[in-house]
Parts: sequence; C-alpha cells; structure tokens
Amino acid sequence: MKTVSGGITAPLGFKAAGIAAGIKRSGNRDLALIFSEVPAAAAGMFTGNKVKAAPVILSIKHLKSGAASAIAVNAGNANACNGKSGMSAADKMAGHAAKLLKIKKESVLVASTGTIGVPFPTERVLKGLDVLAKRLSRDGGEDAARAIMTTDTRKKEIAVAINVGGKTVKIGAIAKGAGMICPNMKFFSGPHATMLCFITTDARIKPSALKKALGEAVSDSFNMVTVDNDQSTNDTAFIMANGMSGCHAISGGISLKKFSEALKFVCTHLAKEMARDGEGATKLIEVRVKSAGSSSDARTGARVVAGSNLLKSAIFGADPNWGRVMAAIGYSGIKLNPDGIDVSICGMKVVKAGHGVSFDRAALRKHLSGREVVISMDLNLGRHEAVAWGCDLSYDYVKINAEYHT
Amino acid sequence: MKTVSGGITAPLGFKAAGIAAGIKRSGNRDLALIFSEVPAAAAGMFTGNKVKAAPVILSIKHLKSGAASAIAVNAGNANACNGKSGMSAADKMAGHAAKLLKIKKESVLVASTGTIGVPFPTERVLKGLDVLAKRLSRDGGEDAARAIMTTDTRKKEIAVAINVGGKTVKIGAIAKGAGMICPNMKFFSGPHATMLCFITTDARIKPSALKKALGEAVSDSFNMVTVDNDQSTNDTAFIMANGMSGCHAISGGISLKKFSEALKFVCTHLAKEMARDGEGATKLIEVRVKSAGSSSDARTGARVVAGSNLLKSAIFGADPNWGRVMAAIGYSGIKLNPDGIDVSICGMKVVKAGHGVSFDRAALRKHLSGREVVISMDLNLGRHEAVAWGCDLSYDYVKINAEYHT
Repeated sequence: MKTVSGGITAPLGFKAAGIAAGIKRSGNRDLALIFSEVPAAAAGMFTGNKVKAAPVILSIKHLKSGAASAIAVNAGNANACNGKSGMSAADKMAGHAAKLLKIKKESVLVASTGTIGVPFPTERVLKGLDVLAKRLSRDGGEDAARAIMTTDTRKKEIAVAINVGGKTVKIGAIAKGAGMICPNMKFFSGPHATMLCFITTDARIKPSALKKALGEAVSDSFNMVTVDNDQSTNDTAFIMANGMSGCHAISGGISLKKFSEALKFVCTHLAKEMARDGEGATKLIEVRVKSAGSSSDARTGARVVAGSNLLKSAIFGADPNWGRVMAAIGYSGIKLNPDGIDVSICGMKVVKAGHGVSFDRAALRKHLSGREVVISMDLNLGRHEAVAWGCDLSYDYVKINAEYHT
Repeated sequence: MKTVSGGITAPLGFKAAGIAAGIKRSGNRDLALIFSEVPAAAAGMFTGNKVKAAPVILSIKHLKSGAASAIAVNAGNANACNGKSGMSAADKMAGHAAKLLKIKKESVLVASTGTIGVPFPTERVLKGLDVLAKRLSRDGGEDAARAIMTTDTRKKEIAVAINVGGKTVKIGAIAKGAGMICPNMKFFSGPHATMLCFITTDARIKPSALKKALGEAVSDSFNMVTVDNDQSTNDTAFIMANGMSGCHAISGGISLKKFSEALKFVCTHLAKEMARDGEGATKLIEVRVKSAGSSSDARTGARVVAGSNLLKSAIFGADPNWGRVMAAIGYSGIKLNPDGIDVSICGMKVVKAGHGVSFDRAALRKHLSGREVVISMDLNLGRHEAVAWGCDLSYDYVKINAEYHT
C-alpha cells in the first residue's frame, strides 16, 4: 500500500467539484458534487442520533439498493429539524443532481452539515448544482474537500493504492470534522459541525463485502473519535466502488483483507486528522486501553477518557494530572480492578497497580507541551484493546462555540 | 418550613469548626470537624466511580452500624489512588478524631477533596484535628463551610426548621462543588474538586427512614447536577440525626413526609448552588424534561442536555442555538419521537413538534444574557418528568482546569 495524490478523484472514473453557492455567510465554498462515471456499489453509515437530519433519512432510503453514482453535499446548513420542508428540500437536491447527471434520483446520496433548524436554501443549492455538474473534473477532489468544511481549519483528504491480483486499486477519501464530533455511526439502523466522510474506490467489490469492510473501518476509526462528546444529527460516511480498476471481484480472502486494511488506514488517517483539527484543538490525544475484559469495555474506556473535559483541560495546560485519567476510567462504567490499573503518559509510567509512582514531572510536562499526547492504560484484566482519539479543550473551543452565532 | 440561620450548627447538639491546617498551598481553611454531642443515626451516599478514594472506602465501612457522631473532612488532597498508605491515613484521621472526641473510631466519618494521587499530609491533618477539637462550637458551621471549599468561589450552607408534632426540628447542611461534578451517588454499593455535602438534624428518626429520605433527596438534587460530566472519586453526602429536638421518632406518615420534603429542599438548594458556582460558570442552566416514557429516560435526557459542551458554550455566548438542545436529547439514548418534541428556552417556544418555529431572537438573546437559563422539553410520550442543573462553559473553566497544576 502506498499513498498517492488526487484524494477523492484518485480512483479511476470519479469526478468532483466544489463551489461557493452562497449557503455560508462567509462566502466560502459550500457545495460539492462527487460523481462516478459508471454505476457503483455503495454503502453508508449514519449517526446513531435519534434526531436525524433530512439528508440522512433520505440517503438511508436511497442506499437500500446497495448502489449509487453520485454524492451531493452542502456545508453551512444541516437541514435538520426542518420538518416536511426539510425532507422535500433533500429530495429536490437529489432529484436535481440526478437530472443533471442523467441518473436515477435513487442513485444520488445527499449529506448536509451546518446549523440545525435554519430553513434550507433550496434554490441556491439547485443553482449551485447546475454549476457543479458542468465543473465536474478528474482533479476536482480538493475543491470538494474544501467545500465540505465548516469550522475545520484545513481540508482533509487522502488516497492510497494497493495491488489486487496485478491491478492497481485506489481508494480516495475526503472528510470534515471540527465540532459536534462524537460519532457513533451505524448502518441505517440508524449539528452544527458534523463528521462527514466520502470515500471512492475503483475496486470491483461485492456490495456485502463493501459493507463489511466499511463497518469495520468506521468502527475502529471515526467511531473512536470525540471532540466534544456531542453526537451530531448529520454524521455520514459513504463509500462508492465503481470497479473501473479492472480488478477481479473482491468478495473475500486475501483481496478483501488487503482492501479492508487499506480502507481502515484511510479512515484512521482521517479520524486522527479530525481529532487533531477539533474545534480549538492544539493537541491530538491518543488513548490506548489494553487488557480490558471485553472489546466493548476497551472501546468505552478509551472513548470516555478521551472525552473527559477535565483531562482535556489539563492537557491543554500541559499538566501531568494523571488523577483525571483514573477518575475518568473509574466512571466509564466498564469492569475494573482499580488496584490493577497501570497508566503511562507519553511513555512515562505514572500509575502502577492503581496508585501513583514518582516520575520526572519536568520531563513529562515537556512531552505534554508537544502536539501529540499518548495516554496508555493497562487494565490487567483480559485480552481486549482499543484506541480512541480526542483533542485538548482550549479557550478557542469556547470561543468558537460561544461566538458561532445562529 | 422556614429557612433559619446557623447552617450545619443550627440543629441542637451540633458543633463544628474549620481551620487552615496547611494542606492547601493557598493557606486557606482546609480542615473541618462536625460533632454531635450525642450519638446520631447516620446515613451516607458515595460516588459510583469504581476508583474510590480511601475516605470513601473507610466511611462505607463505618456507616454499616447506621450511627455516627462526627465527620472529619479535609480539602486540598483527595487521598485517592494512594494505595495502602492512603487507607492507613484515612484510618488515622478517623482514629485521632475519635480519641479527641472520646468516641469510637467507627463513629467518625471521613471525607477528602482535592488533588488525586498526592501523598496525604497525615501529620498536618492530625495536628489540625487537635486544634479543631478545642475550637468546636455552636457557631462554627460557617468556618466548616469555608474549610471544605476547593475551586468554589463562595461557601454553600443552609438551614431550615419544620414542625414535627409540636416540636421544632431543624436541618442544616454545608456543601462544596465547583469541578469534577457529575455525581451519581449511591448507598455504599457503590476527584480534584468533588461534591461533598454534610447534613445535620436534631430530628429523631429511624435509621431506615433516614436512609430512605436521604436517598430520595440526593437522587433528585445532587445526582441531577453536572458541571463537567466528570464523576469524582470522592463524592460524599452524609447525614447525622441526633434526636435532640425531642420530637417523636419519625418513621413514616406525615412526619416522614414533612422531614423528607425539608431534606429535599435543603439538598436542592445546595445542588443548584453547586451548579451556579460550577468552575468558571457565569450562569445556572436548568433543564426540565416532561412527558418522558420513563423516569429513567426523563432523568437521563435532562442530564445529557445539561451536560452538552456545545449547548453550554452557546449559552455562555447567549446564543439561542436550540439545535444543540435537539442534538443532545437525540443522542441521549432515551426513547424519543423526534417529530413530537417541543422545546422552550426561558419561556419562549423555539421548537414545536420537532422543528423550529419563529421567535423573537433579540428577546431570547436578552433572556440568555441573564444569570439563569431554563430549558424546557416536552417529549409528548409519557407521564414522567425530571429536572437537571448545569452551568455554562466559559473561558474560565478552561483556565481553572488548565492552570490548576498538580
């Protein structure tokens, strides 16, 4: 596997574009279109929030066929809590894109991110789609990556190439995050900012295998990120696989393993980028839990510690305040032997068998002043492990969210 | 019922004192002793955190008899994650107080609040107890209230009087909060800052009735407060009832109802004070959920909304951003019909049947600039309701917790 350029338009047969359609008050890019020249197998995962935005409800329906050819997405308006007019707007967005691209409405997936409860600017979006359909191009991936940003400070994109039976298969993706980030995405069982990730690949892959690979990748990447513990109404991850690499049909065995690993690499890269660029973040926090009694315990423990406001504040202040790690794992609700817990921060042991050990505070403070902080916990109970990502809690988080007026 | 002066020493037979024993680096008061001249029925509730501080573990043991005569408490050191030496220190604290007061060690309850994992300054505490035992007085309640503060900006105390069968019965209490506040206290099944509440009463009451009344009062007051969603290792609520009012023994009926209501009033007052004085708080947030499908759903829904970082930040900024209320109730995990939810903020309807309605934004902004914000949600599902309290998320929360160095 190697990383390649081109982002979401790196895989063969995909075109994209991103423009400013007048949805964001800032005048920045806010509307994107991603298109596969040939019909693609598709899968999607969505927020577990019971209050779901209209585009989420519509895309769940459109994905039932397991196929799609296009993704239309806007930033600046979440189209959530807008009642029937919101559903109608999402439907028009898909329908208009379909007409322009000469495909069925059900082949268009839609997504939105932005403020909840603001009437959707349908006319601007439809006019914007007219422009986008003409601008679609093989190097439009970066524009699309920029168009989905809200409070993100930088675009998030990646592409990788793997070899499947002698053919080069590419996976490309763009994502956005920043705030209201604590995804718990599920297959269609069912904010403001929101996490979105759109993945393209020219692999030929069975829809069932594609869904399985996406589920595993999202579970260990995006679903392990928390910026603020606030799960959005709009979280969405889509993947489209159009088969244009000419590889054999991936359905299992070594090919699926390779594909799944590459997909997980892509999602993990973007998940970490999302945490690193969380609203107001100055540091990426990685929390590793090992020897937990169950996989669910390992995941919950890691996520709860990564989401502790007190710990996040301490790390912003480069304070080696390990008591906050112990308190957080203690209230996470998972099975624990408090006297069996070991904790290391940035590789330095601070807790052994549940109580503090002496360590070089000045050295640890220095580590904590860096851009990445790793907190490792060994629960000494079982054989399960998990990794979660978060970020520190800074003055700017408060600023962004107190001053981002509706 | 009427409020009276005197705080924790208002009820007959109780003395208290609070001094600076050199535990806090600031030199402020940090050690308190509360004493009942006669043995008292006692009950206690403790943090549900699986990582429990030594004084919590010891007090759970001491409370098994259902009786106690004294409470010794320090601020500035949590005595948590200190291993065997921490347990020994808590034991010495109780033992020394017992010797000074000429009572059994098991009659002394202990509590600590402060930094986790810092070796306990046992000698200073024992010397401090020597001074406290001599200073115990009928008007020492306020000193005790001040001695248990950590990041609290003001003392928290109250006392009320009720009439039980012609006798005046008083209930007094002190409490502290500020940070690491998301208590979920339980009877002994079951941080830095921590919530502590000590309650005295001269009621004569059966231990089983006392426990029941405390459980109900804590459940609807302290257990419905969140400052930062971080549940402490040290949360503790004690009540001692010494019978010195001379009232008949309260065991049920109208007397217990009156007593329970008064106790709930006391705890609710202090719980709101705790939220209002949360670390960095500029506003009290009250979240009311009604017509939920179950009591547990109503409680969870109210607490989750009160704990949303995004909503707390918006309220700090006086932004009528009701989408964050909808997102939070949506991810709370409770049973919901998203299209059946009504939301009002400060009495102004903002959401009807799940989607936004027009409202006077300028007027609501003005309400949100006040010191108290009430968010009411009607789920239109069932007949259960609950109220939770929190506070806004300000720059000062980050400052206090990033700069409160260990």
